Amino acid sequence: MSKTIYVLNGPNLNLLGLREPEIYGHTTLNQINETLSGLAQAEGFDLVCFQSNHEGALIDMIHEARQKASALILNPAGYGHTSVALLDALKTLAIPVIECHVSNPAQRESFRHMSYVSLVAKGVIAGFGPQSYILALTAAIDLLKS
Amino acid sequence: MSKTIYVLNGPNLNLLGLREPEIYGHTTLNQINETLSGLAQAEGFDLVCFQSNHEGALIDMIHEARQKASALILNPAGYGHTSVALLDALKTLAIPVIECHVSNPAQRESFRHMSYVSLVAKGVIAGFGPQSYILALTAAIDLLKS
Amino acid sequence: MSKTIYVLNGPNLNLLGLREPEIYGHTTLNQINETLSGLAQAEGFDLVCFQSNHEGALIDMIHEARQKASALILNPAGYGHTSVALLDALKTLAIPVIECHVSNPAQRESFRHMSYVSLVAKGVIAGFGPQSYILALTAAIDLLKS
Amino acid sequence: MSKTIYVLNGPNLNLLGLREPEIYGHTTLNQINETLSGLAQAEGFDLVCFQSNHEGALIDMIHEARQKASALILNPAGYGHTSVALLDALKTLAIPVIECHVSNPAQRESFRHMSYVSLVAKGVIAGFGPQSYILALTAAIDLLKS
Amino acid sequence: MSKTIYVLNGPNLNLLGLREPEIYGHTTLNQINETLSGLAQAEGFDLVCFQSNHEGALIDMIHEARQKASALILNPAGYGHTSVALLDALKTLAIPVIECHVSNPAQRESFRHMSYVSLVAKGVIAGFGPQSYILALTAAIDLLKS
Amino acid sequence: MSKTIYVLNGPNLNLLGLREPEIYGHTTLNQINETLSGLAQAEGFDLVCFQSNHEGALIDMIHEARQKASALILNPAGYGHTSVALLDALKTLAIPVIECHVSNPAQRESFRHMSYVSLVAKGVIAGFGPQSYILALTAAIDLLKS
Amino acid sequence: MSKTIYVLNGPNLNLLGLREPEIYGHTTLNQINETLSGLAQAEGFDLVCFQSNHEGALIDMIHEARQKASALILNPAGYGHTSVALLDALKTLAIPVIECHVSNPAQRESFRHMSYVSLVAKGVIAGFGPQSYILALTAAIDLLKS
Amino acid sequence: MSKTIYVLNGPNLNLLGLREPEIYGHTTLNQINETLSGLAQAEGFDLVCFQSNHEGALIDMIHEARQKASALILNPAGYGHTSVALLDALKTLAIPVIECHVSNPAQRESFRHMSYVSLVAKGVIAGFGPQSYILALTAAIDLLKS
Amino acid sequence: MSKTIYVLNGPNLNLLGLREPEIYGHTTLNQINETLSGLAQAEGFDLVCFQSNHEGALIDMIHEARQKASALILNPAGYGHTSVALLDALKTLAIPVIECHVSNPAQRESFRHMSYVSLVAKGVIAGFGPQSYILALTAAIDLLKS
Amino acid sequence: MSKTIYVLNGPNLNLLGLREPEIYGHTTLNQINETLSGLAQAEGFDLVCFQSNHEGALIDMIHEARQKASALILNPAGYGHTSVALLDALKTLAIPVIECHVSNPAQRESFRHMSYVSLVAKGVIAGFGPQSYILALTAAIDLLKS
Amino acid sequence: MSKTIYVLNGPNLNLLGLREPEIYGHTTLNQINETLSGLAQAEGFDLVCFQSNHEGALIDMIHEARQKASALILNPAGYGHTSVALLDALKTLAIPVIECHVSNPAQRESFRHMSYVSLVAKGVIAGFGPQSYILALTAAIDLLKS
Amino acid sequence: MSKTIYVLNGPNLNLLGLREPEIYGHTTLNQINETLSGLAQAEGFDLVCFQSNHEGALIDMIHEARQKASALILNPAGYGHTSVALLDALKTLAIPVIECHVSNPAQRESFRHMSYVSLVAKGVIAGFGPQSYILALTAAIDLLKS
Repeated sequence: MSKTIYVLNGPNLNLLGLREPEIYGHTTLNQINETLSGLAQAEGFDLVCFQSNHEGALIDMIHEARQKASALILNPAGYGHTSVALLDALKTLAIPVIECHVSNPAQRESFRHMSYVSLVAKGVIAGFGPQSYILALTAAIDLLKS
Repeated sequence: MSKTIYVLNGPNLNLLGLREPEIYGHTTLNQINETLSGLAQAEGFDLVCFQSNHEGALIDMIHEARQKASALILNPAGYGHTSVALLDALKTLAIPVIECHVSNPAQRESFRHMSYVSLVAKGVIAGFGPQSYILALTAAIDLLKS
Repeated sequence: MSKTIYVLNGPNLNLLGLREPEIYGHTTLNQINETLSGLAQAEGFDLVCFQSNHEGALIDMIHEARQKASALILNPAGYGHTSVALLDALKTLAIPVIECHVSNPAQRESFRHMSYVSLVAKGVIAGFGPQSYILALTAAIDLLKS
Repeated sequence: MSKTIYVLNGPNLNLLGLREPEIYGHTTLNQINETLSGLAQAEGFDLVCFQSNHEGALIDMIHEARQKASALILNPAGYGHTSVALLDALKTLAIPVIECHVSNPAQRESFRHMSYVSLVAKGVIAGFGPQSYILALTAAIDLLKS
Repeated sequence: MSKTIYVLNGPNLNLLGLREPEIYGHTTLNQINETLSGLAQAEGFDLVCFQSNHEGALIDMIHEARQKASALILNPAGYGHTSVALLDALKTLAIPVIECHVSNPAQRESFRHMSYVSLVAKGVIAGFGPQSYILALTAAIDLLKS
Repeated sequence: MSKTIYVLNGPNLNLLGLREPEIYGHTTLNQINETLSGLAQAEGFDLVCFQSNHEGALIDMIHEARQKASALILNPAGYGHTSVALLDALKTLAIPVIECHVSNPAQRESFRHMSYVSLVAKGVIAGFGPQSYILALTAAIDLLKS
Repeated sequence: MSKTIYVLNGPNLNLLGLREPEIYGHTTLNQINETLSGLAQAEGFDLVCFQSNHEGALIDMIHEARQKASALILNPAGYGHTSVALLDALKTLAIPVIECHVSNPAQRESFRHMSYVSLVAKGVIAGFGPQSYILALTAAIDLLKS
Repeated sequence: MSKTIYVLNGPNLNLLGLREPEIYGHTTLNQINETLSGLAQAEGFDLVCFQSNHEGALIDMIHEARQKASALILNPAGYGHTSVALLDALKTLAIPVIECHVSNPAQRESFRHMSYVSLVAKGVIAGFGPQSYILALTAAIDLLKS
Repeated sequence: MSKTIYVLNGPNLNLLGLREPEIYGHTTLNQINETLSGLAQAEGFDLVCFQSNHEGALIDMIHEARQKASALILNPAGYGHTSVALLDALKTLAIPVIECHVSNPAQRESFRHMSYVSLVAKGVIAGFGPQSYILALTAAIDLLKS
Repeated sequence: MSKTIYVLNGPNLNLLGLREPEIYGHTTLNQINETLSGLAQAEGFDLVCFQSNHEGALIDMIHEARQKASALILNPAGYGHTSVALLDALKTLAIPVIECHVSNPAQRESFRHMSYVSLVAKGVIAGFGPQSYILALTAAIDLLKS
Repeated sequence: MSKTIYVLNGPNLNLLGLREPEIYGHTTLNQINETLSGLAQAEGFDLVCFQSNHEGALIDMIHEARQKASALILNPAGYGHTSVALLDALKTLAIPVIECHVSNPAQRESFRHMSYVSLVAKGVIAGFGPQSYILALTAAIDLLKS
Repeated sequence: MSKTIYVLNGPNLNLLGLREPEIYGHTTLNQINETLSGLAQAEGFDLVCFQSNHEGALIDMIHEARQKASALILNPAGYGHTSVALLDALKTLAIPVIECHVSNPAQRESFRHMSYVSLVAKGVIAGFGPQSYILALTAAIDLLKS
């Protein structure tokens, strides 16, 4: 089994920590990725971290994960609510997918209440800020070890 | 600050591990509660674990938590989709509420896609089986420590 | 196989025969239960009859039926239209469930047209007044004998 | 009072017992009709049994029943969900109408959840396989005797 | 131009005057047709009057009207709310179609508020009892004369 | 019984015959009113004709009709689709109300498919151009004479 | 006629005055009940005041009121929006029911806009804070005196 | 603070007591206004009472109340369900608005269940017949005194 | 395996080529059937071609195809959007069903966007005019040969 | 061509600048109209400015504009969301209509998202405060000059 | 006329034949494209085959087809259900567009039932597996030749 | 403050002036951009003009505008109706956003009536053809100057 976990982030998450820090906090995506990598290595896993504002680039990377990853953590951001193409890409995976959100979509606009990613994700973690990623990685490693 | 965390479980969860084990696994609610208590004690917290099939009893216990708890973990089961009264009880709390589900409701019948509890929960964790509770407790303790 | 059939009645059915007799007739729930018991004994079955206005008490009793009953007849009354928790309790049963209504819900307000109980019931009998219970018991005994 | 009961069956029910026997069983409509006739005669009633795939033919027959029948048992099959004309035909009857289904429509596609026939039927019996017809006949005779 | 007007009546209208006379009056369809024929002849037109409970027979007759009629009066009854096939048959006509109802559908159940026939009818007359037909014939003749 | 019939026209109908003559024809409202008055007088009735673009003025006039009219013909135009106040005014009448439209609303935008006036009108006539008014007056006089 | 009025309060209203005082004020439910009792006694009426977080207990108490009360004032809180069982209990009453709310539900979440209790309540009073109860009691006494 | 309270009544309420007295009673709007004026004067307040069938006239009067009134009681009748303009007029007020209905709209047609006025009203009183106005005035004076 | 393919056409298709030729072309159904028969024979298959305006007759013919055909091509016309009975008839088939339309329903009225036939058809071909039938036959023969 | 442009303002806009200045600013409608007149005159156009809270008065004025104006600028305020009559009045115009809003309706309540005026307006300008009117006039003059 | 046909495939179709072969078969997109090219050449046409997971890249290629192609075959995959931009790109084309699907979307999740591409496609072919492409190419060539 | 304004155009707008000139006119996007640049320079502003068919590229450019622009003019074309990701990108901006459309979306298909961009745009200008851009730039400069 591959020892690699993919951590994908969707549109606008490159600005995490840089905008509306009173809501999203001051932690940047780079800092989160570094924290996650440290945790993964301690458990014997490698991470591939990737962010893009391009739906197609995210799909391409999910296809890459089909061959190379043992689990996939995905914060789809806006594309989670609108992209059937993303759903179809995830459906091609045999590995567990964990959906992850910084805030709790159920408390935002109604168009954020539906997630195509949830239709295939093994599990969902939402609302804990940057801590959501750490919980997601913990869950992924637990799944892979069990 | 209180060092007590309430872990409430709604209707039919007393049968966890006893029914449909191919879906929900063989772990019983008692076993989960014991595991959680061990983890909590190691971090210096006490747990109050409670399960009821009675909506009113869950509300009564949430009211009790107002006075005694520093965080509340809730798997509302069926009442999460139908109970405005439960929502109103949670709205009286100043402590963080973490919603927790064994399976992923987004992959079940459409009447399970909406959760009144999500409207007030700090965060949501769903789909990881009994592991969902452990992630929820981890998240709760992280929140209380930060 | 257990020779016991559970007959559960939901909220307000304790008033059967006492209110709106021009609609519901003059037969009380006790009289119905006695008639049913006589019919059951003639066929070699025991009945456990139970009515409650408390959703949780009905769920508790359904859980009891898991262990003790060979069939369950349920008139969920108002809870049939609103209770996912009741549905989930019924889903834990391996025995046949028969849904029973005194009047025909399809001819009443639109919020009575949907029944969570129907999603798991083996069969539904509605509209025949107190006779609905007798037909339901007949159906249950037929099922157990075949 | 007429001693005749009409038993009408809608489209595709001529294939009962011939298709998907794992769902619908091996009993043919002819066998059901013979069983029903025997039961009716024992109670002093005659049956008129009729099946058609033609909506208009069913309406014609309901009109005939206006003059000749004391009760009508109807399994409308697919026309129950779509035919206002059938509803209007039934509205011309002063005799009791009993709606009958082999399977439980509430557990099938959403377009089967609504029944125009239920809007006028005295009672509904669904889900008991061929036994549904026997329960319906029992109910009809009980109604006529009371 | 043909001097023939077709007057078509849909399902259950053969019972006009025979059922619910307190609502629909005591005038039978035959009496209406005779009155209409008298009026038509006085204006130099022939009528072809036809009623059927069979959707297909009504469609066949509409096709016949394509060749032979200069106007068509149609009371579609229940098929008006459900039959796209009837709409498509009417769409093949180049002659004016007048929709006619004994009662006012807007005051009945919501499934009677939509009429496929209205989508192609030149005009609609509803609610005047048997007088609706006379007004419809008057309108048809006015149209043909102008 | 009063020998007066009120003919009320709603907003923009003062422009009848002046705009879009290819759709609505060249007949003005004044010409229609004159034709109607001639027909009424021949039958022994007086007409009161009134048009306003003001919803309140139409309601005031309906109130006047309560005291003075034996029938009311109303083309509500745009207010028919939006005015509960107009409906309530009509509900205060004991005399027959006839709804009348120049074109057929069922063939226009979906917001024209619902008419509050239809909820209380004895009958509806639509789609015959200025002829719709003549048919409505004919129907009104028939009703008053029968 | 009984001189007793029942004042029932639904879930979470035991916390009135204790939570979110900036919205709901500092008056507790006990203080309200005392004020109401004083007003009632001055008019020659007794009050029975009852609060519960249990839907079933509220239904039980409504059944008790059938026998003992001359009027019922009910603040159903969250159960008003979800409980068909509560509605059915109220339907068994012959006495006037007055629905009462501290805040105005129309200004809150959309799931609070519908009230099953309103379907049977004689009248509704909402939005006046604790004063709503006093107005409701005034209305009840007015009704009983007239 | 101004000692004047405006009492505005919408369309058709000029007929209160004159139509359908079995539903609305025999009390006229003038009588209600006189009773209210007496009550107000006893408490040291003046009333301005106004009724119109014209939406614009009601808006003009609400604008006048902006300058001159300390509270506004409004029975919007049919305009309450349809008039965004009325809502916008009320939004310009800093004084409390009390919505008042003679009957209970929740028990009438579904288009009466929504009220634009409720979106800004401090409180709502409905269903008590003419007594609704007295309760509304009582509530208004209580608000102004507190 | 049977070498017979059934080609069924629903209501109004007997007028193909005779009406609205600017939309549907000048090719008649007979001409299409002849072309199809020639193509089928060249591939060693026989065709049974049938058209009816009667829903029941189409169902009867589908039942016949159960015994005699190896594939079924169906243009359901208007019945495709409304007939659950047709769907149920098709569900009794074990052979491939190909749905075929002359025009593209997605570009027509919204009530043509749903097709019950599509719920069971192996494949759908729409929009190519009479060529749609040839493509459907090609597809059927490909399926039977593979 | 007429050199006159009509600038119509709907209900409550007479209070522009007088209420909620933190949202709508301090500029009054008179001041806006003066600014607009100055700009128009500089370009060789006359303005007719009109505001009313009466739907009918606005319609009357639109009819006047049919004869006298070369363009019409309209801020319909609340009537834009509810008035089919206003839409019909605008449909009688051959001149360009420009819809203008002070704030952006898409960011307000959902019942403000639909505008009947937009269905016929040449263009829409919204959200720029009083500047919206100036942009609208600029656009109107550009249109008239091109 | 150009002798070039564009065959475009949307997201995830690069994995055709590589994933879920029990559903989609073992044929890869490259193999399909080769088969199609052979067929096209035999008829004197060239193919341009293109697949992308990027919505923008597909739009760019559609723009290229405007200049260079005589027909366009498109399997939009997930973008067909969500992309108005894709629809707008197709609207710029004067050449026939043929929509093509491997499986039948009507039998999948409800969000796959709507296709923006169908709103402009000349024809649609769905459900025949890789054979769908061959039928689409056949149809395209037929169209170009006729 | 930056003196730079970004003008972004979404999918298919590169074809402006090249397709359907009878609707969109003959002005190309380049010509519009040149006109805008000239106007901006006259007011002391620089423009950055960008068009892409790629959603991600537009988001990237909005991120760039966060740092470099003082205002943003955006014609989102098809992405405006479907892209939550675009909305989220715009939410990161502190500068005013002006939404701009060549045609009036309210007069096109219903799926064009909703715009995610409108949820954050300061103002919207639609329907004036290429002139829409000039009005938008005028509005932007007015905003920046005030």
